[in-house]
Amino acid sequence: MAISGVMRLGEVALRVLDMDAALHHYIDIVGLQKVTGDTGHVYLKCWDEHDHHSVILRSADSAGMDYCAFKCRADADLDRFAEGAKAFGLEVSELAAEERLASGRRIRFQVPTGHWVELYAHKEQNGNGLPLRNPDPFPDGLKGIAPGRLEHCFVYGPDSAAAARFFTDVLDFSVSERLELPDGSTKACFLACNTAMHDIGIVEHNEPGKFHHMSFWLDSPEEIYRAALLLGKNDVPIDEGPTQHGIGRAKTIYFWDPSGNRNEVFSGSYLSYPDRPALTWDAAQIGKAISYPQRRMAETFMTVLT
Amino acid sequence: MAISGVMRLGEVALRVLDMDAALHHYIDIVGLQKVTGDTGHVYLKCWDEHDHHSVILRSADSAGMDYCAFKCRADADLDRFAEGAKAFGLEVSELAAEERLASGRRIRFQVPTGHWVELYAHKEQNGNGLPLRNPDPFPDGLKGIAPGRLEHCFVYGPDSAAAARFFTDVLDFSVSERLELPDGSTKACFLACNTAMHDIGIVEHNEPGKFHHMSFWLDSPEEIYRAALLLGKNDVPIDEGPTQHGIGRAKTIYFWDPSGNRNEVFSGSYLSYPDRPALTWDAAQIGKAISYPQRRMAETFMTVLT
Amino acid sequence: MAISGVMRLGEVALRVLDMDAALHHYIDIVGLQKVTGDTGHVYLKCWDEHDHHSVILRSADSAGMDYCAFKCRADADLDRFAEGAKAFGLEVSELAAEERLASGRRIRFQVPTGHWVELYAHKEQNGNGLPLRNPDPFPDGLKGIAPGRLEHCFVYGPDSAAAARFFTDVLDFSVSERLELPDGSTKACFLACNTAMHDIGIVEHNEPGKFHHMSFWLDSPEEIYRAALLLGKNDVPIDEGPTQHGIGRAKTIYFWDPSGNRNEVFSGSYLSYPDRPALTWDAAQIGKAISYPQRRMAETFMTVLT
Amino acid sequence: MAISGVMRLGEVALRVLDMDAALHHYIDIVGLQKVTGDTGHVYLKCWDEHDHHSVILRSADSAGMDYCAFKCRADADLDRFAEGAKAFGLEVSELAAEERLASGRRIRFQVPTGHWVELYAHKEQNGNGLPLRNPDPFPDGLKGIAPGRLEHCFVYGPDSAAAARFFTDVLDFSVSERLELPDGSTKACFLACNTAMHDIGIVEHNEPGKFHHMSFWLDSPEEIYRAALLLGKNDVPIDEGPTQHGIGRAKTIYFWDPSGNRNEVFSGSYLSYPDRPALTWDAAQIGKAISYPQRRMAETFMTVLT
Repeated sequence: MAISGVMRLGEVALRVLDMDAALHHYIDIVGLQKVTGDTGHVYLKCWDEHDHHSVILRSADSAGMDYCAFKCRADADLDRFAEGAKAFGLEVSELAAEERLASGRRIRFQVPTGHWVELYAHKEQNGNGLPLRNPDPFPDGLKGIAPGRLEHCFVYGPDSAAAARFFTDVLDFSVSERLELPDGSTKACFLACNTAMHDIGIVEHNEPGKFHHMSFWLDSPEEIYRAALLLGKNDVPIDEGPTQHGIGRAKTIYFWDPSGNRNEVFSGSYLSYPDRPALTWDAAQIGKAISYPQRRMAETFMTVLT
Repeated sequence: MAISGVMRLGEVALRVLDMDAALHHYIDIVGLQKVTGDTGHVYLKCWDEHDHHSVILRSADSAGMDYCAFKCRADADLDRFAEGAKAFGLEVSELAAEERLASGRRIRFQVPTGHWVELYAHKEQNGNGLPLRNPDPFPDGLKGIAPGRLEHCFVYGPDSAAAARFFTDVLDFSVSERLELPDGSTKACFLACNTAMHDIGIVEHNEPGKFHHMSFWLDSPEEIYRAALLLGKNDVPIDEGPTQHGIGRAKTIYFWDPSGNRNEVFSGSYLSYPDRPALTWDAAQIGKAISYPQRRMAETFMTVLT
Repeated sequence: MAISGVMRLGEVALRVLDMDAALHHYIDIVGLQKVTGDTGHVYLKCWDEHDHHSVILRSADSAGMDYCAFKCRADADLDRFAEGAKAFGLEVSELAAEERLASGRRIRFQVPTGHWVELYAHKEQNGNGLPLRNPDPFPDGLKGIAPGRLEHCFVYGPDSAAAARFFTDVLDFSVSERLELPDGSTKACFLACNTAMHDIGIVEHNEPGKFHHMSFWLDSPEEIYRAALLLGKNDVPIDEGPTQHGIGRAKTIYFWDPSGNRNEVFSGSYLSYPDRPALTWDAAQIGKAISYPQRRMAETFMTVLT
Repeated sequence: MAISGVMRLGEVALRVLDMDAALHHYIDIVGLQKVTGDTGHVYLKCWDEHDHHSVILRSADSAGMDYCAFKCRADADLDRFAEGAKAFGLEVSELAAEERLASGRRIRFQVPTGHWVELYAHKEQNGNGLPLRNPDPFPDGLKGIAPGRLEHCFVYGPDSAAAARFFTDVLDFSVSERLELPDGSTKACFLACNTAMHDIGIVEHNEPGKFHHMSFWLDSPEEIYRAALLLGKNDVPIDEGPTQHGIGRAKTIYFWDPSGNRNEVFSGSYLSYPDRPALTWDAAQIGKAISYPQRRMAETFMTVLT
């Protein structure tokens, strides 16, 4: 297959302040499925993912992202990327198989923006609740928003240009869109490892290791609208949306989990083939870039991070 | 980027009996855009494609597909695939740059089902009608169904098992789903080169080189419904749909162009990552596989080909 | 309010062959709510109806409709319509309050097509599951297709012209659309008492008292599509759709309950104000009238009745 | 038919500052159709209305609403309502047929909030662009948002309680929902003459005769989303939305015409039969009442009027 190296964002590990509140949010409202775990760590997944889990919640005193992990196609990719990361100047550690639950061996490093990133090529598969022969289109018992899959994550930190360069030059990501400051430098960079418009986004910011959001895929504008009602019915605070981004032209709602970690539901966009020209947004157009119809955004959108 | 080798279906070249009627169909109703051409050959594209064209219509005495062409990431892929095709036993010819309009050099061969397939890595880009800086989400002046992109093609012919093996073993496609006969052999095979559920489908059939349909992407179930009304308003004959496939769980309508070539509009489905388990459908479930809610299909669906 | 006389279809009383199967169909799949009842009679309602119930199922040896009942605005309307019905030549009986469960007094008569029709002005209200102060847009716990309200019913019988004349001249309905035979007579008549495109439809047919379908309202084309998937997932036989009627331009799916009574989900259409011109469809256009995009319909659609 | 008296909002007459800009807004972006008129007065309509026009634009030095007009079922209704209005204490004038373009005779009066209201029973019909025999579901050539019909208007002024009492007691409207202040008085009142959730809304406000918005019907959440993109693409300022009202549970976007008159696109809601219980919203819940998912609204929403 044409896909090799990094296939997709496979895992986001978040810190939450109150596990019961977090589980109510992610299971009952967002509609993720609990795979396993106790009060310390809980492993969740979207219903249409075949891998064991995609979201990990850890009880902690501060919210934010512990790490994000990308799944590669082959074990050999890990060696190649470890070499590249070392050559780029990062310190690379190795996690043995099963050091992360249900996972094959991993490599792990801190990118210039201060975020911990892991790569792995194997994870136990527990299926999407449907048989592999004559499956129905969805399983019984879905509840809440019920996205089919984790889509991307978005982070803030210093030296984002170097981080972006690491993703493109070492991990073979492509830049699909950029928000450009008047001096020509990049304020925000959207990086795709595959046909998704972005698998990770990086924004230049003075504090290292900050988390802006993780995003879940929905299938249509109407599902975005339905998500808005479920968020309202459950008194989940909404940051922005429902609206459509200028960047990536995706339908979106941003909202917060009870610990203040931002979530997004996301639908639409285009396929980011490597031969598709990259797009640039002027910082003066940031309103349109974030909320295309309204051309403005909540102040919280650029300032509240975990 | 993780994408290498064959990126996507880039071109379908069709024979049509009456060019004026064909242009009315593809431009005014389907909503493709005419790029260039005269009565002999006309080059069309979907509005959100950056490459020069994706559909070619040729005036002829019989309908059907002249060839389909896939775009590869790099020129070197062509050499690698030419080697592989020869090793597989196919005769491979080379087309020089510009032998096909606006195209870099190509390799060309006939797969075991009798279909002509071409590979190329370069094609002139004429954009999607939007600027690369601060673009709106769609250009002005779209008309008809107006799909954003060509999605896949579907063909019938003998020795489909060998053809499928060629696509998987030589061109690195993956099998995402199969329709299986009671003897365990494959009646229909859905082959993905990338994250689309399939870029080509192949059905076992006694006549070689037959064309079943080419498919265009739409963004939502409601756009499928809107397409149904536009087809009805223009008296375009509908074969099946609006409905949802069991296979690939995509929303769909099949309809015919004035020459009897089948078109599809297609929306939804899942991402066919290489680590997603392949699905199998029993031939006894073919009704559900094709038209999931109705569990039956028009007789024409399996029998009318060009 | 501008509304007086007959406000809407309030009740359809159906015969079912197997109550358990019927309850599984109407509660788990269609998503009606059980109000009360035992194996002999069960009373159901759509979630957004404030009145006590709208669908009654009765165990019987043959399927079909016992009667349909319309709710009038005021008790005095019953007297007025009783007078009119008698003057029209119908025999009118009176049912005392509580003779029908949770209902005020009723008048009852048989229209020329052989269908029993009842009128009432009062029914106990048990609410739509939401408070009357600061309500959410929908209650918790909806399942299945979950239509908000019963929309219309559709019947077949002889002397439909007289029946239609009764509805227009005595009960103040308007004809919104007609399907006309080549001799100028009416094959099917769509009758509105209010802004719905029709509250009852009547088709000329040789057998008296036949039931074609009752219809439930959904809010969007995408909800129609979702209903199609739920019907498919539960192996409910579909007669026609998802498609859009030419008549009334509503999105639709027809399907059968386990006893063979036809149901419809219905969305869209226009408001049938009394000053809106009536529409006529030629019998030669019946395909387009029933299934606008496909311009054909299942043979069962015109022939299977209960 | 059950409908008598006031059938619907039939006409909104607006003042605009720059007719060319207004026509670009209402014709090219909102997608109304120009019926007739010159630079002084232009008559517009929604495509699916059969009456001659529904929106009148008048060049003036200040924006706002000249009057709104409701269509009654019968000429005799005008006499009855004139009597009632006089008995209520209003001064009633009469406009002869053709004094308003294409209109039968009218009665005209100023309600306590300072708004001019007219009633008429006849208006020339110029059709919806479709034949009355075998019509397609929509005409060719629609552009912009293209709502099918004018839905309601919304006004601000003093003594709104008296105005609401006039609409209910004299014109037979019903109160479907109210926003209630802590002292039990009504801040905003939603009044229905028919099955629409409201045909006019009235908000208590110190200045008389102020206009908040007129609203156009769309058929689905996805059409609301599409409207948002068209507004964004044309740089039309958006006040609120896309979102869903708690009140009336309708999907909505509020935006401004170039003169500052607010428009709304509106979809969904329920049928306001006279036996449906009225709903009350606490002023403390105004965020949820206006923008259910976000539970907040732009400050402009309550303060910017014309």
